[in-house]
Amino acid sequence: MRMYDIIEKKKQGLELEKDEIYELIRLYTDGNIPDYQMSALLMAIYFNGMTKTETSNLTDAMATSGDTVDLSMFGDLSVDKHSTGGVGDKTTLIVTPIVAAAGGIVAKMSGRGLGHTGGTVDKLESFPGFRTSLSPEEFVSQVKKCHLAVIGQSANLAPADKKLYALRDVTATVNSIPLIASSIMSKKLAAGTHSIVLDVKAGSGAFMSTPEKASELAEAMVDIGKSRGRRTAALITNMDIPLGCAIGNALEVIEAIEVLKGKGPDDLREVCLALASVMIELSLGLSSVDAKAKAKEMLESGKAYEQFKTWIALQGGDPSYAEDTSKFGSSKHEHDVLSDREGYIRSCDAEAIGIAAMKLGAGRATKDDVIDHKAGILLFKKPGDRITAGDVIAKLYTDREYAIDEARDMVLGSLEFTDEPLPEAKMIYKTIR
Amino acid sequence: MRMYDIIEKKKQGLELEKDEIYELIRLYTDGNIPDYQMSALLMAIYFNGMTKTETSNLTDAMATSGDTVDLSMFGDLSVDKHSTGGVGDKTTLIVTPIVAAAGGIVAKMSGRGLGHTGGTVDKLESFPGFRTSLSPEEFVSQVKKCHLAVIGQSANLAPADKKLYALRDVTATVNSIPLIASSIMSKKLAAGTHSIVLDVKAGSGAFMSTPEKASELAEAMVDIGKSRGRRTAALITNMDIPLGCAIGNALEVIEAIEVLKGKGPDDLREVCLALASVMIELSLGLSSVDAKAKAKEMLESGKAYEQFKTWIALQGGDPSYAEDTSKFGSSKHEHDVLSDREGYIRSCDAEAIGIAAMKLGAGRATKDDVIDHKAGILLFKKPGDRITAGDVIAKLYTDREYAIDEARDMVLGSLEFTDEPLPEAKMIYKTIR
Repeated sequence: MRMYDIIEKKKQGLELEKDEIYELIRLYTDGNIPDYQMSALLMAIYFNGMTKTETSNLTDAMATSGDTVDLSMFGDLSVDKHSTGGVGDKTTLIVTPIVAAAGGIVAKMSGRGLGHTGGTVDKLESFPGFRTSLSPEEFVSQVKKCHLAVIGQSANLAPADKKLYALRDVTATVNSIPLIASSIMSKKLAAGTHSIVLDVKAGSGAFMSTPEKASELAEAMVDIGKSRGRRTAALITNMDIPLGCAIGNALEVIEAIEVLKGKGPDDLREVCLALASVMIELSLGLSSVDAKAKAKEMLESGKAYEQFKTWIALQGGDPSYAEDTSKFGSSKHEHDVLSDREGYIRSCDAEAIGIAAMKLGAGRATKDDVIDHKAGILLFKKPGDRITAGDVIAKLYTDREYAIDEARDMVLGSLEFTDEPLPEAKMIYKTIR
Repeated sequence: MRMYDIIEKKKQGLELEKDEIYELIRLYTDGNIPDYQMSALLMAIYFNGMTKTETSNLTDAMATSGDTVDLSMFGDLSVDKHSTGGVGDKTTLIVTPIVAAAGGIVAKMSGRGLGHTGGTVDKLESFPGFRTSLSPEEFVSQVKKCHLAVIGQSANLAPADKKLYALRDVTATVNSIPLIASSIMSKKLAAGTHSIVLDVKAGSGAFMSTPEKASELAEAMVDIGKSRGRRTAALITNMDIPLGCAIGNALEVIEAIEVLKGKGPDDLREVCLALASVMIELSLGLSSVDAKAKAKEMLESGKAYEQFKTWIALQGGDPSYAEDTSKFGSSKHEHDVLSDREGYIRSCDAEAIGIAAMKLGAGRATKDDVIDHKAGILLFKKPGDRITAGDVIAKLYTDREYAIDEARDMVLGSLEFTDEPLPEAKMIYKTIR
């Protein structure tokens, strides 16, 4: 195989053979194809796309480029969830205990976040003592005990994807559906679960700005999963506004616990039940209706909450924090954001809210930044709400007094008002099976 | 300027600003933009093209990235010719003395060849003692004396183009009209002549396979030249068949001398007169009709031939070789290629003939190969000729006995036959002014 010929072939819009794709990924991972040839190929893929077969082969080639997790001892029961990421997305903390309580197996690896707030493992570290790194034996042993473990992602999971992503990031070749889909799915395939549920966010706070674009990506990912023998489904969910009210690590954990206790914001509960239902449906082979009832039952009966505490305890965390969330502590500064306008909130730029939270200490701007688990924002008002000037719209939590003014202005600036009441926002746009 | 933004902009099909183009070429030449970003940009340019303004700016940015030649002392008279390259193309050896004899100024830099045969300077080195490297003072002094000097290309001429071309060559981004046009024209602009005549070859032995594609490239180059204040024109000429009968360095020099003596093949003379006419037209500001008459007069009167000998002598070569071309010597092996078929030759694959000549020693496969000046092929029969089995179609000249069988088979394999007589091939398709 000559890399030149591969670039030329894709440039002409021809389909790359299976062998060509596996070999180019192997050679690139081993450092035997220079970045300047790979970036030319990536740009040609951006313009000419990839067929379903090419995308499936690329995904598997990347998935098998490093460590893979063997969950075959759990038969068909293992199920994973992946979110394309959004502001205030704490669904994993709620969904996984619901599914585990229902009998599904959640043996999950999760990334650390770079952006507005931490990733799931960062959030879980709000529990003092929580261990995000387990040996393979500990991991499997815990899953056997409570059907649920969430650990940090292995450094050698899909290394080809890691290397390719770094190159795409500096060559303006990120926004290609087959490249995004194969990148996400390569890690999911390597993580070994039999079923995969994808939460593809659409809106101002998401990578995909519209439900149509999100659906295109979701369909590509579902195609990949199915072509590789995994039960796969995707939900397209609303990320025009932050999900729930809390943005920030411990704040989000507390909000997740509220939902597990039967309280918490409606939008968050709705999305979590929808995700959990599809996970249960795929994992246990139930009908859609039965799976929905099961998920609801697990949440309302408190079984999911009990499952959550067992999980946290087994992984080294202190479950009494769930009983008394004041134990998570408080920031040095709490600041009420008062509305300077009145009317109905028409929209709220989720992206801007996320950046405000990051400035307060909730997220990382670079990978070496340290997260302040307690920092973040609670949003009390959301689109559709009627506001009077002087109402408390949000509360900022931070140890960085200097960041308060800027964050407050960003929160206020993120809102648009209208004089007319709005219809309720739709949270779930579509399910793709 | 962030290179990422430049790539993204071109990827979206937007026009790059003048400042952006000059800065990216400057940074890339200085090693401050990595190849992997530049190759992504090149591929985006392949797909989205460049506007005339972008192409003109790119060309000038590359032209001014290194040394430039100042020929302003010759006013409007300086004129250059560039051929996009083909098999048996020895036109420079004939055209430049015609133009110089007519009063034009030809101060030319020419590349060495990589491919079927050597470049013009390789061919000129068939004259023992011929100096292809002159100091700037010697160069100008000779041009003042005889209106004509041809030297090897300065190593620091358009270094940005050199670096970019090397990258395009390994990333399948060569065949882009704005990139080809800017690459060629950057060197012509740097070489400093006031007028530029382009010989764009079309056909099986050329980079551009059809007159239409060749015209597209020619128009792009003429646009660039004019936008930079140079008088520029292009001829689209036939390269379906080798030009003339000789392929190989000394063989081509001998054939060129034959034309200058008023003999030689008709097709070669026709192309040379057409090129010389346009060069004279631009350089001296004559009408097309007067320029044609002038070119013909210079050739037929023998003035061009005298000019040729003066030039060779001034540049250190022995002009007696022109008087007695047997002095160029002969190869160890001369081999007649006999036809194994009969009928009219319908076509002759110029590319295959070129490769056969290279195998006999006439060209370089890699840049470190040494050229055998005496090696090559004389073609006695060309498309349209009627052949009987056993006729001598060509003669091979080589010191490599082992290469004869393969070269003979390539020459025979390059021919297609028909039972019907053919109309005469058109040599000049079009002139673009």
